[in-house]
Amino acid sequence: MDTSTPPDDGCECEAATLQLHRVAIDTYRENVAYLHRDCAVYRAEGFQALSKVEVRANGGLILASLNVVDDTAIVDCGQLGLSEDAFALLGVPNGHPASICQAEPPSSIPALHRKIAGERLDREDFRAIVRDIAEHRYSKIELTAFVVACNQGELDREEVYFLSDAMTQVGRRLDWHEHPVVDKHCIGGIPGNRTSMLVVPIVAAHGMLCPKTSSRAITSPAGTADTMEVLASVELPFARLEEIVREHRGCLAWGGTSELSPADDVLIAVERPLSIDSPGQMVASILSKKLAAGSTHLVLDIPVGPTAKVRSMPEAQRLRKLFEFVSARLGLTLDVVITDGRQPVGNGIGPVLEARDVMRVLEHDPRAPNDLRQKALRLAGRMLEFDPDVRGGDGFAIARDILDSGRALAKMQAIIAAQGGRGFDHNAPALAPLSFEVAAAQGGVVIGIDNLQLARIARLAGAPKVQGAGVDLLYKLGERVEVGAPLYRVYAAYPADLEFARQASQRSVGFAIGSADELPHLFVEF
Amino acid sequence: MDTSTPPDDGCECEAATLQLHRVAIDTYRENVAYLHRDCAVYRAEGFQALSKVEVRANGGLILASLNVVDDTAIVDCGQLGLSEDAFALLGVPNGHPASICQAEPPSSIPALHRKIAGERLDREDFRAIVRDIAEHRYSKIELTAFVVACNQGELDREEVYFLSDAMTQVGRRLDWHEHPVVDKHCIGGIPGNRTSMLVVPIVAAHGMLCPKTSSRAITSPAGTADTMEVLASVELPFARLEEIVREHRGCLAWGGTSELSPADDVLIAVERPLSIDSPGQMVASILSKKLAAGSTHLVLDIPVGPTAKVRSMPEAQRLRKLFEFVSARLGLTLDVVITDGRQPVGNGIGPVLEARDVMRVLEHDPRAPNDLRQKALRLAGRMLEFDPDVRGGDGFAIARDILDSGRALAKMQAIIAAQGGRGFDHNAPALAPLSFEVAAAQGGVVIGIDNLQLARIARLAGAPKVQGAGVDLLYKLGERVEVGAPLYRVYAAYPADLEFARQASQRSVGFAIGSADELPHLFVEF
Repeated sequence: MDTSTPPDDGCECEAATLQLHRVAIDTYRENVAYLHRDCAVYRAEGFQALSKVEVRANGGLILASLNVVDDTAIVDCGQLGLSEDAFALLGVPNGHPASICQAEPPSSIPALHRKIAGERLDREDFRAIVRDIAEHRYSKIELTAFVVACNQGELDREEVYFLSDAMTQVGRRLDWHEHPVVDKHCIGGIPGNRTSMLVVPIVAAHGMLCPKTSSRAITSPAGTADTMEVLASVELPFARLEEIVREHRGCLAWGGTSELSPADDVLIAVERPLSIDSPGQMVASILSKKLAAGSTHLVLDIPVGPTAKVRSMPEAQRLRKLFEFVSARLGLTLDVVITDGRQPVGNGIGPVLEARDVMRVLEHDPRAPNDLRQKALRLAGRMLEFDPDVRGGDGFAIARDILDSGRALAKMQAIIAAQGGRGFDHNAPALAPLSFEVAAAQGGVVIGIDNLQLARIARLAGAPKVQGAGVDLLYKLGERVEVGAPLYRVYAAYPADLEFARQASQRSVGFAIGSADELPHLFVEF
Repeated sequence: MDTSTPPDDGCECEAATLQLHRVAIDTYRENVAYLHRDCAVYRAEGFQALSKVEVRANGGLILASLNVVDDTAIVDCGQLGLSEDAFALLGVPNGHPASICQAEPPSSIPALHRKIAGERLDREDFRAIVRDIAEHRYSKIELTAFVVACNQGELDREEVYFLSDAMTQVGRRLDWHEHPVVDKHCIGGIPGNRTSMLVVPIVAAHGMLCPKTSSRAITSPAGTADTMEVLASVELPFARLEEIVREHRGCLAWGGTSELSPADDVLIAVERPLSIDSPGQMVASILSKKLAAGSTHLVLDIPVGPTAKVRSMPEAQRLRKLFEFVSARLGLTLDVVITDGRQPVGNGIGPVLEARDVMRVLEHDPRAPNDLRQKALRLAGRMLEFDPDVRGGDGFAIARDILDSGRALAKMQAIIAAQGGRGFDHNAPALAPLSFEVAAAQGGVVIGIDNLQLARIARLAGAPKVQGAGVDLLYKLGERVEVGAPLYRVYAAYPADLEFARQASQRSVGFAIGSADELPHLFVEF
């Protein structure tokens, strides 16, 4: 029945050996392999440009997209070129022998197609998909299809649990050998809002274990990791992080997402440019990261407001139930707090400006934003109540004592020193050199501040990449402003950034001014 | 109010001039720009890797993704490198001055986000999105998001009309200055099925204008353009195509999609790897291409069968109504024919094998597949009835006369000669050198042939890229087979391809054998 001669070892690719060559091109998170068009392996294997290929060297294996090259100055016919990240991942020297073969399509692709077609997936489907994503087997197209299909078809709560569980399984999981391990998290969407940098020193000063790992900004002008980086190093080896946490009961470090949440790290690369943040993906991403970081107890902050991620109280309650359902099944104790998301929290938007606000609260500076202080105290209070020895309702007062006594500042200074302090001075913050102010077109009471627009302006001005760029708010909701008074000041490092930010503020200033009775209702506790 | 010095010309990017440099890397349909990490422009503009940038030179403009390079052998600090396609698009020589600046996000992105969120879009939204897609302003991620969002949220019929209309607007539109201009199209999914290559010579021999532009295979083992390419050249300049059509009343050429349907050409790059073919996108893609090619009358073939694209008669009727609604609004006369899609049409699957079947039908070879002949005659008959002088019901007999008299063969030979004939001989087709056969595991009647599985095996064997690769069916539905008899033969050029195809046929042979009464019902006319 068989009229052909089968290859001896069942797979041609084993034989194809080339010399590994580092091609000094930074392709940003995307592994690219370069083969010369006249390379015998390229011709024999019938590769196509952009084919997914497997590259093996010294026992290691990476997946890459193939680019075909016609210039021997980049790769010659006996070489297998790899982009910088791909080369580093493989970790062998230039000239090392390597083999290349066509990558098999990821085994979870049929499950992806069923999700695109609107079907419900089971636990095994999610495990297979998340494993393939974490191993970089999905192309950008397949990743986007997964994200959009989950967003549109809206995962049911069991599916969200399966996805969260699958994302927890693929990463490394820390174990602090202690109980409780507390954490707090905000679903995001509110500029400023750097409560973690106040909550961690308060809770750690009380003696609870709070090894906070934070993310960098994804679509916002600053994440906690970006802001903390103004004060100290946030990229620490796990061993050093562990020492710091053992000694100080807390830390403020970057989550090192690629190790703790490898799938999340990959998904973010497509979620960010699409600004997609569906409830299911949000729950899975947050809870899987918290479990991976070893947390046992979590206070979750859901801000509600007309320009927040969550626009109404019923929507906030639905999201709360989803978080509660999934965290219960994952064995994580959860306390959800619904907060005021009508405007940015604090005055500054951008890493340096937010670091300034945080330090002013810790140092009781009269210019410290009171809303940031109050919110941080309330969240810290809820976390303190995870302590069996703290009575329900006493947390806030304990948190306030810790802050007002200077113990929170001392703890923060100790953490900053341990993480390699950078000598930040909130009286002389290193703001970006260019700036402009935006003035009130009429007098009256501030009745609206658009979180989205102010975040956009701060990002256009260069935040978070330019630490000193961003927006400094001079008025907040309910305050009276005169016509022509500056509402906020924008800082940027580059003329083009300043111009983009200025154009955005001209299209929409982000502030609404009216009369006191037009202030939107506050539905929430704080 | 303004404390900064604004740039003189309002935009920094005008000033940034570099020397254009061709980087000999084939990045396959994706424009890539390369800047050295120490390039002053890169540093000053604050670009990020993978940023979308605008490159201008000599009045031309292209968009590209940015890769950052650390090797002056690839680009040096004063150069702006472009990948091969991008360089060719810009069309200026090496060393020409060029400027680069951050690309503004496509203006239709808010509409894309609304579609992702499940909202209905209006005519202007679709126009803006399709224009941005055609101008290559969307990233792969944004393209995928659009395709998946339209697939999942299922466009309503007005939206399908808006999308079709928008896709027609962006491309070039041919005008044959004649009426009617007839065409036929099949929605696809049935391997083999090369009826166009029989229908065109029949209809053209009758004297009707039938300037058939076909596509290459997207997810199938061969498209009409791939198969016609075995016989003659299909990539002809429009001027030459026009001459051929004027002289012979027909042609069989590749649609040159990038000019006639630029948006479709871009969308296919993400639809193909996802195997997405939603009704809305199918209708818009087909009808916009027919209008662009100047057709006024279209016969549309919708095959129905358990492994066809359309699985049931009600589904076929829904799709028919959608095609009818949209084509009426676009001013295209449409005749929908629902056909038997239970199995491949003809025996061969793959360019050379399908070309062999077509030529055998034209030459009345006794080995010619009868199902292909019958289906082609019926479709040609329906097209002939677009002729006001042909009575309803007479088309089939006229078509049969044209085929049986040899006039169709003569017409096909004239078209082949005009398009640059390649001397194909159906008695000695150039099949790929490696092959294996798949035998029946039991005796009985063939009661099922899986279109999808046989297409998959043919593609794994190398079709359509390897013209001589594919599957040759030795039995069809309803035929009696002995145990051990070969059901089909697989041809491949490379051992790895052969092995992939073999493994697939071992996982599922693609044939079901049983008793005559188990044959699936045939619901359709033919």
